[in-house]
Amino acid sequence: MKATVYVRPKKEVLDPQGDAVRKALEKLGFGGVAQVRIGKVVEIEFAENIPASEQNAMRAKLEQMSDTLLANPVMEDYEVTF
Amino acid sequence: MKATVYVRPKKEVLDPQGDAVRKALEKLGFGGVAQVRIGKVVEIEFAENIPASEQNAMRAKLEQMSDTLLANPVMEDYEVTF
Repeated sequence: MKATVYVRPKKEVLDPQGDAVRKALEKLGFGGVAQVRIGKVVEIEFAENIPASEQNAMRAKLEQMSDTLLANPVMEDYEVTF
Repeated sequence: MKATVYVRPKKEVLDPQGDAVRKALEKLGFGGVAQVRIGKVVEIEFAENIPASEQNAMRAKLEQMSDTLLANPVMEDYEVTF
């Protein structure tokens, strides 16, 4: 089974990396870009398939993973999909 | 208008960052993870809306942005969505 966690900087938080990319795009001649924000995609492959009855437990486990390791909940939002 | 570019390491390429996360998850007690791969999400907000007739040109522009700046085409695959 495969799950994906998207981690993005919170709206209120400055994203210097995204800002640098925006400026670089402008320099390269790609105008009209108002904002760029950069986050992470974490693709997790599990060794076994998860039965439908355990999907809720799985989601809880993935959220716990995100809170403790994959994202910084102070500055980042995350979204779990599978 | 908003576009998103997903940048992921190619399948044939080792992903040491993902591997480190897999090991850390194991140490934290999250067993059963076979593989972790980590990529980027680049969210680009354009100043103006793009008319439907120009969506193809827009896609070409975003692919050019990805090839020149957002992704390393040697080691990474990207996917443009908007």
